[in-house]
Amino acid sequence: MKEAISLPLEDKGVEARLVDQVMKECDRAGVDRGVGLKVLNALVAEGKRVQGIPLEQDTETPISMIEKAMKLHKEGKKLIRMDVGEPDFRPPGAVLEACSEALFSFKTHYTLPKGIPELVSAIRNYLQRKRSFEAKESELLVTPSGRFAVYAAFASVLREGESAIIIEPNWPAYKQILNYVSVKPITVPTKLDESWDVNLDDVKNAIRSNTKAMVLSYPCNPTGKVVDPSFFRELLGVANDNGLTVISDEIYNEYSYKPCPTVLAGGAESFVVTSSFSKTWAMTGFRIGYAVSSAELVSRMTKIVSLVVTCVPEFIQYGAIKALESDRESEENSKTMKERIELVDRELSSIDSLSYTKPDGGMYFFPELTGRVLEAKEFGSRLLNEKGVTVTSGTAFGDYPHNFRISLGQPQEVLVEGVRKIGELLD
Amino acid sequence: MKEAISLPLEDKGVEARLVDQVMKECDRAGVDRGVGLKVLNALVAEGKRVQGIPLEQDTETPISMIEKAMKLHKEGKKLIRMDVGEPDFRPPGAVLEACSEALFSFKTHYTLPKGIPELVSAIRNYLQRKRSFEAKESELLVTPSGRFAVYAAFASVLREGESAIIIEPNWPAYKQILNYVSVKPITVPTKLDESWDVNLDDVKNAIRSNTKAMVLSYPCNPTGKVVDPSFFRELLGVANDNGLTVISDEIYNEYSYKPCPTVLAGGAESFVVTSSFSKTWAMTGFRIGYAVSSAELVSRMTKIVSLVVTCVPEFIQYGAIKALESDRESEENSKTMKERIELVDRELSSIDSLSYTKPDGGMYFFPELTGRVLEAKEFGSRLLNEKGVTVTSGTAFGDYPHNFRISLGQPQEVLVEGVRKIGELLD
Repeated sequence: MKEAISLPLEDKGVEARLVDQVMKECDRAGVDRGVGLKVLNALVAEGKRVQGIPLEQDTETPISMIEKAMKLHKEGKKLIRMDVGEPDFRPPGAVLEACSEALFSFKTHYTLPKGIPELVSAIRNYLQRKRSFEAKESELLVTPSGRFAVYAAFASVLREGESAIIIEPNWPAYKQILNYVSVKPITVPTKLDESWDVNLDDVKNAIRSNTKAMVLSYPCNPTGKVVDPSFFRELLGVANDNGLTVISDEIYNEYSYKPCPTVLAGGAESFVVTSSFSKTWAMTGFRIGYAVSSAELVSRMTKIVSLVVTCVPEFIQYGAIKALESDRESEENSKTMKERIELVDRELSSIDSLSYTKPDGGMYFFPELTGRVLEAKEFGSRLLNEKGVTVTSGTAFGDYPHNFRISLGQPQEVLVEGVRKIGELLD
Repeated sequence: MKEAISLPLEDKGVEARLVDQVMKECDRAGVDRGVGLKVLNALVAEGKRVQGIPLEQDTETPISMIEKAMKLHKEGKKLIRMDVGEPDFRPPGAVLEACSEALFSFKTHYTLPKGIPELVSAIRNYLQRKRSFEAKESELLVTPSGRFAVYAAFASVLREGESAIIIEPNWPAYKQILNYVSVKPITVPTKLDESWDVNLDDVKNAIRSNTKAMVLSYPCNPTGKVVDPSFFRELLGVANDNGLTVISDEIYNEYSYKPCPTVLAGGAESFVVTSSFSKTWAMTGFRIGYAVSSAELVSRMTKIVSLVVTCVPEFIQYGAIKALESDRESEENSKTMKERIELVDRELSSIDSLSYTKPDGGMYFFPELTGRVLEAKEFGSRLLNEKGVTVTSGTAFGDYPHNFRISLGQPQEVLVEGVRKIGELLD
């Protein structure tokens, strides 16, 4: 019937009103709101299925791009990999040595789910020294990757049928993991021609009665945007006013070239910080991260670690202690990333058919194909097939079909060659 | 009202009838059964909450016991640890070397979520060589622990509101993870005085219209029971007849001292095998395991790995390849475990106030306090406080308040001392 009279199949306004109505009915009848939301959630999902509305689609993620590229690589194709968000730096030597030494000292056993006390204590000292943040050990948790920290945060803070605010473009995993835990992502888009600035009213208007969290991450993956700490405070204020927990993914904070906001500086009434050893110390393949939150949320997140994976490998935890002391390496990595931003900025600026903002930090550019005629997906596909260069299509990060992400996790000469090939294809 | 007229608060028969009714109504109305079960599940849970029926309780698990013991250890108390299911053996030297070598060769990057091709291929060869099972690579998945393989299997095979059969006593994680993914565990109890035999009619009668999986694990943790392969086939037949997927946790298969059943020998129409490097090669602290299933289920499980943790640490995967070639070590470990079973059997047999069956395999004894006067929880607590010996209370493994689990993950002299102290306290 909707189709016959040209009504859109999905009406987000109706969905939001239903949420309000169900929560009111729950309050009136003395039923737990969570039960109402859970039932509504099941019925809305079924309604969509029956009407043929696709569920949140599987977008092309950086990881699926890796698989495609590895296949081509196997077939003998020489590739310039500017897709995956992985620094090419080496992990600090002290980390490798501590990890190996722990291995040969038979640190090969189960540990406490929250991490070995020595690492928890080292994270506490690191946060004190680098962020002037005083954490109790009960407020810290070691996780098997920053990604897992995000998953555990979402699963601990949010319940099925609730919703969370995400500012887009952003890391695809936020939306994917929210969908996985049956929480509705509500996206607040930002635009290149507004310098990726966040409109505070857009954020306020996006909040529904069942919204319980706001996900923030600066420097932004993929735009490199870093909002001012004062504006960040305003965002936290909106979260506080609406009883939202701020989940701040601070994985790129060491790669920021203007003052980087952090919830650890205060201002959020309820928060979880997720972070990782992956970017700062180039330890992606170690799968280790951490979370900072209230003792109560950390305890809930610890139960999830315990339930799903028991703990992080013991000898890796010993290695991670040394990373937290490797300031020289993290500073060098940060400096190199800054140089790459400058370099790629110079190279990209000569390509007329691309628009972009110069990143404030992070390790990515997110240019747009000017005129928005060519779709980035098709462009990326031709770039791979004709020039052997991999980038990630903008659709992975939100509704950005004409943008693509360039990752700076490659040596300068590779980046220059890659960007020049982008220019060649566009010419 | 129920209380006033002495009716039990919970009536499992009513719950089972409701499930049938809802599924029938769904079929009649052309609504997806999953939606009906999801809604029923939310309402039943709320009904229980309102009536004050506790949700599946947090039982004392081996891990929570570790925390208690570590605290006492920190306070300087000398302990005999017979609680945690962790072999005291050392990982094979070749594993340590390969892992360390991979680390220093910078195998420190993201890998494919399903595992590095070299390890997947090594698992395929291992299954061919040791289990005469021919797997395609698409049917294999590397997981960050056997526990994670179980979690991914449950989350892939079962949907919210469905149910799964578990034979008890068994590893507490099965029930805990099922509860976590909102699936109802239906337990089929076995008894010491029936030699922990499984009654096939009990299994058949436990199956409801929403039951979708049967969880099996032999040798059994905690009883050490290994059922005959012919009886195992009968269990698989029941699963097939009812359209259940068999989830067979084969983590202890190398510690079996009579022919050990495996679904890899055939007989199950739909199955997932979960396994791990933890017990066979004493690699608990490496957090690595694997799963074998249909390509379709492996693909669903791979998505969960990718979503929650990306992949297993790369250099650990290189170490694991060497484990699969370490037959000498796994045979030695298996032989030592057999000797410990004989030894502890001799020691325990002289304690009058304990009844038990001698394990067919695995690494545990599960004795019962004869007469069932003393609760194992109280006994375990006194054993820890008065004798410095840790065991795990039977309530962790099901409704076994008078049993406790002794783990054999300690050298012979420690086991002898521990069991003698148990005898002393009982005297």
